[in-house]
Amino acid sequence: MSISILRTADAWWAQTQAGAVRIDTHATTTAELLADRAAIETARTGGEAVPVESLDLASPVTAPCRVVAQMTNFRSHVIDSGMDPDTIPLTFFRKASGSISGPYDEIVRPAHVRFLDYEVEVGLVIGHPLTVGSEVHAANLEDYVAALVVTNDVSARDLQLPKTQFFEAKSYPTFTPVGPVLLLLEPGELNRFADLRLHLSVNGGTRQDKLISGDMIFPPIEALQALSRFQRLDPGDLVLTGTPMGTALSAPSKIVQLIGNFLPAHVKWKAFFDKQAKNPKYLQHGDLVTARIATDDGALDLGTQRTTVRSA
Amino acid sequence: MSISILRTADAWWAQTQAGAVRIDTHATTTAELLADRAAIETARTGGEAVPVESLDLASPVTAPCRVVAQMTNFRSHVIDSGMDPDTIPLTFFRKASGSISGPYDEIVRPAHVRFLDYEVEVGLVIGHPLTVGSEVHAANLEDYVAALVVTNDVSARDLQLPKTQFFEAKSYPTFTPVGPVLLLLEPGELNRFADLRLHLSVNGGTRQDKLISGDMIFPPIEALQALSRFQRLDPGDLVLTGTPMGTALSAPSKIVQLIGNFLPAHVKWKAFFDKQAKNPKYLQHGDLVTARIATDDGALDLGTQRTTVRSA
Repeated sequence: MSISILRTADAWWAQTQAGAVRIDTHATTTAELLADRAAIETARTGGEAVPVESLDLASPVTAPCRVVAQMTNFRSHVIDSGMDPDTIPLTFFRKASGSISGPYDEIVRPAHVRFLDYEVEVGLVIGHPLTVGSEVHAANLEDYVAALVVTNDVSARDLQLPKTQFFEAKSYPTFTPVGPVLLLLEPGELNRFADLRLHLSVNGGTRQDKLISGDMIFPPIEALQALSRFQRLDPGDLVLTGTPMGTALSAPSKIVQLIGNFLPAHVKWKAFFDKQAKNPKYLQHGDLVTARIATDDGALDLGTQRTTVRSA
Repeated sequence: MSISILRTADAWWAQTQAGAVRIDTHATTTAELLADRAAIETARTGGEAVPVESLDLASPVTAPCRVVAQMTNFRSHVIDSGMDPDTIPLTFFRKASGSISGPYDEIVRPAHVRFLDYEVEVGLVIGHPLTVGSEVHAANLEDYVAALVVTNDVSARDLQLPKTQFFEAKSYPTFTPVGPVLLLLEPGELNRFADLRLHLSVNGGTRQDKLISGDMIFPPIEALQALSRFQRLDPGDLVLTGTPMGTALSAPSKIVQLIGNFLPAHVKWKAFFDKQAKNPKYLQHGDLVTARIATDDGALDLGTQRTTVRSA
């Protein structure tokens, strides 16, 4: 059975039925923790337990690390973004790992950002070096994907769309809440990946609620095969696998897009965002964002993340 | 006067009038070398010199490091790309530092890439931690920009354009030749930045030849001010500052673009690349790419890079 790891400022914990048991390890980074499997096993089989609620949890993925993200990777989201899921290419971008924050931390909206959006995503935590030229296949995929985490790929849409490159719009501090759980997978458990349900609500109202199965376009094996052609990954690195439909941003109709293309880019975007100003779904100061990922039968449970939006 | 640093597999060298003098340092990374200024000063003032030509030079910027690049940052290139230089936003993307290669290494075209392009760019080498929230201004800019290097932002256009995110198309191994010289700046020398001329030729034929002055849109101070809002940088990190006109890729006319927008994306790109197949400027197996950056008066000289293209 998978092991749920938690992290506080100065310690790592294994979640047991009795509560959280401190892991006896010198690891300070996620990579070091993953390498100390003996200490993890000792903790999971017993020890002094404290209530999980008593812990002040931090992101179980430590920075710095590489954060690589898949663009538009759910059919529902691709359609919602005005594109064709049958021809969309497998595409990656980078986020600054300085954007990683804890599962109950605030999401800080910079003063110059107007349209802040959410994207619940499964994060793959790398457990074995993936060098360029490595062969990834079904039999060794689990060597590379050591663990799963809940992530929110927070996005400043008014920066992202006019700039076209997603890097800045998704890299501000607190734009990647991670956790609470680092779900260490046992052999065979990655086979349940497609059964994970991604759920995100804002102030209790559901915005995203989709199973991976039938909706994800490029599953982890294809993502890692593609990355192995050009991007080395190391233990502790994080790969975000895309979000389903339900974000605040929704594409204008195809006909509106085509008309917009006759305008200079800055005029087009001004018109677009003037309209978005009437869209109530963007995140506002004080909003509570709840993100949860698990299989419906609870066999894999990445936990529930609760973050509050604060305007800087 | 600026100091020209060279690197070989196991040593660092200061270029003097008598030749290259080995720097007595334990530094293995560019960050460590920059911190050992005393050893650099000792070497530049004398020692046993060997001919520079006898050295097998490697990139003077070591990986891993962050590689952040500015998108379309020269008026001439923006116009050539079918966009408006007066409204183009300041935009960054990331490259994998595994793409860094030496100044005389081969550029390897992966088998699945058809349209390989070049972009000569000045690289800023960071010398002081730039934390998010740092204030960058004229008086402290030189603290952050320790050195300059010649870089080539090699780009697989057939991946870059359909995927829209530039990360993969510019991140394959050997897609960032760097060097030969790490030009350590003395106080005041960054004032000559705008006088640098970027020159790139293929098999002796000039493709790019532009002064920064009058062409660059967002100079280093604006780039670092923008980065300081969201992306931490550390010593040894590399910021590419964009390329002038003359790349193999040239945008289709505005009217062709508008017609193309009525087509499904994959049909549009097939038509575009069918046409590009007749463009002889893309890099071919055996092509010699020569990239050189210096002020016309030679006061700042980043050296000349010679790389040969090999098809994998």
